[in-house]
Amino acid sequence: AVSALDSQSSHETTILPGLINIAAFIPGVATEGDADFEKATKESIAAGFSMIRILPMGVGNSITDAAALNTALSNTKSAHADFNFSVAATSDNDAQLRELTNKVASLFIPFNHLSGNINKVAKVTGHFGVWPEHKPIMTDAKTTDLASILLLASLHNRKIHVTSVTTKDDITLIALSKEKGLAVTCDVSVYALFFTQEDFPECSVLPTVEDQKALWQNMNIIDCFSIGSLPYQLAHDLKQKPLASVGIADALPLLCTAISEGRLTVADIIARLHENPKNIFDLHDQPDSSVEIEIGRPYIAEESDVWSPLVGRTLKGVVKRVTFQGKTVALDGQVSSDGTLGKDWSAWMPHTVVPQLSSPSIAQFD
Amino acid sequence: AVSALDSQSSHETTILPGLINIAAFIPGVATEGDADFEKATKESIAAGFSMIRILPMGVGNSITDAAALNTALSNTKSAHADFNFSVAATSDNDAQLRELTNKVASLFIPFNHLSGNINKVAKVTGHFGVWPEHKPIMTDAKTTDLASILLLASLHNRKIHVTSVTTKDDITLIALSKEKGLAVTCDVSVYALFFTQEDFPECSVLPTVEDQKALWQNMNIIDCFSIGSLPYQLAHDLKQKPLASVGIADALPLLCTAISEGRLTVADIIARLHENPKNIFDLHDQPDSSVEIEIGRPYIAEESDVWSPLVGRTLKGVVKRVTFQGKTVALDGQVSSDGTLGKDWSAWMPHTVVPQLSSPSIAQFD
Ligand SMILES: [Zn+2]
Ligand SMILES: [Zn+2]
Ligand SMILES: [Zn+2]
Ligand SMILES: [Zn+2]
Ligand SMILES: [Zn+2]
Ligand SMILES: [Zn+2]
Ligand SMILES: [Zn+2]
Ligand SMILES: [Zn+2]
Repeated sequence: AVSALDSQSSHETTILPGLINIAAFIPGVATEGDADFEKATKESIAAGFSMIRILPMGVGNSITDAAALNTALSNTKSAHADFNFSVAATSDNDAQLRELTNKVASLFIPFNHLSGNINKVAKVTGHFGVWPEHKPIMTDAKTTDLASILLLASLHNRKIHVTSVTTKDDITLIALSKEKGLAVTCDVSVYALFFTQEDFPECSVLPTVEDQKALWQNMNIIDCFSIGSLPYQLAHDLKQKPLASVGIADALPLLCTAISEGRLTVADIIARLHENPKNIFDLHDQPDSSVEIEIGRPYIAEESDVWSPLVGRTLKGVVKRVTFQGKTVALDGQVSSDGTLGKDWSAWMPHTVVPQLSSPSIAQFD
Repeated sequence: AVSALDSQSSHETTILPGLINIAAFIPGVATEGDADFEKATKESIAAGFSMIRILPMGVGNSITDAAALNTALSNTKSAHADFNFSVAATSDNDAQLRELTNKVASLFIPFNHLSGNINKVAKVTGHFGVWPEHKPIMTDAKTTDLASILLLASLHNRKIHVTSVTTKDDITLIALSKEKGLAVTCDVSVYALFFTQEDFPECSVLPTVEDQKALWQNMNIIDCFSIGSLPYQLAHDLKQKPLASVGIADALPLLCTAISEGRLTVADIIARLHENPKNIFDLHDQPDSSVEIEIGRPYIAEESDVWSPLVGRTLKGVVKRVTFQGKTVALDGQVSSDGTLGKDWSAWMPHTVVPQLSSPSIAQFD
């Protein structure tokens, strides 16, 4: 896709640490025999993401119990990047969560999708009761649901990460909550920073122009960037082929272009795609992984196998080389990874502490 | 209705201060020429309530702007008890609230009824921005909406009162919130303490048996008792005549019966129908008002003009005499009030302080 570029060029390059996608959407995540996992990890490593946190919500299937987790794991024989799995909360799986806590990296609360919406507050309280205090919790709650879960998390002294914030109201609420000491963090999908409903009226999950403006104005509130399911949803809404790999390769070129335009800094990206993800989600270190990028040289994005809204646009940033575990796994868009380097980190524990002492950074209400 | 009783009897009587109904439901509150106000105040004073806080939500009409408030006031020419009016929040009346703040006693946020439910969180934030910090805010929010508004109130350092709690989940959430220092108070309708969905399956707004048990177990969390709209809704659901006066006369007999059974104390009632209401809602003092009750003598409730679910039941508490402004206005159920004593206290200000200093009891999050 970046054929106009020459890897022997004299332009300055920047070295980033291995990047982390904290919300990797894999449509067939819990579907037996599905190939989406391999495709997604391959596209990820080529794009500079050496670690992906896989959302437990797929299309049709989700990881809500041990059987589904086993199915998901059976699809990981070929893995081009490190990964971990999470478990999704449902209205009635709090009991099953107990046996999964040591096998997954985090609990995901799909607040808008819990079946039996009669009493979501009580349901979520049940999950907080079962889930270990030191393990991350992520949610995609919005508007009233977001306020509701922020209160519950605070009342139960739980840290909570809000994924894929897209609106002015939600980022404002999170900003205010942070200001008051609530233990909340958040991410914004890269697509939400660069595409709006005005660009693609067919896609109502994109931010409005006003929403997007508020996201940029609250950049200091945004802890992480993510890929999320937004690219998949956009492709779907535009009647394009919605693949597991859509949107991944667009992330760094979009962000680097913003750097070249002075809207972001390299440090902003390292913080939101490496340091903060690692700290918030207690991830392992990847010392021999890095991404070489070139910022500033304009080129026109070309068509490829994976649909992208960027085709035909002028971009000013490109991934030159990706190093994973000391090996070059991608060079100028050519992937040389053989799928043997990626490891499952779902059960990894970052520190062995007694749970009571494990959340010193949690703000108390009183 | 209590013809079997003799006011010269030798049984012990107890003197309560003038009682306060913090949630008086008047169906025709904002309907021009409606007589509900007089009926409700007359029934109130006969039942021992010398002060009523009128809910701004009627049937069909509500007090949401200056015009509706004027209509409500025009119906108050004959007033048997002191009263004040509140204003109801709608999706788009935050601007109009400014001109009403000094004319009403509190803001009521009908969280489940805001028109345009698209983004309730943002709407409520707008109302918090406009409403003076020192003036009371009341809501009837439940479940997720309740959690949501509790968070917003806390983030904005606002005290909030939750009216007509009916479920185990909600009282549990409020208990936890209080434990963590949130500035929340609540009331339970007297009917919710004594009637369940098992008694009246037609009425889904009543608590279940389990809910009611939780309400009694959390009596220390319940700041106030109220009449609310629950009696009206019960009458409506049972296809009885739903009048402005339904439920009011039943409150003290039910509560006194609970005292005689050892489930409540006289102090519980004074706290929840006088002291706490006065403190929470910054109400004026009524020094020459009192209610003489007799507790313990069993009698069977008889039919009257106003439908009551108590007819035929054995009760053990009765209102003997109500004194208002030093005058006996009701004696053994006979009302001698002429409707000239009740005053409008909507605009009354309890203390002249600068707003910044007016909420010392508010718990901060951080
Ligand atoms: Zn160059
Ligand atoms: Zn698939
Ligand atoms: Zn808890
Ligand atoms: Zn690092
Ligand atoms: Zn007697
Ligand atoms: Zn009427
Ligand atoms: Zn505020
Ligand atoms: Zn008093």
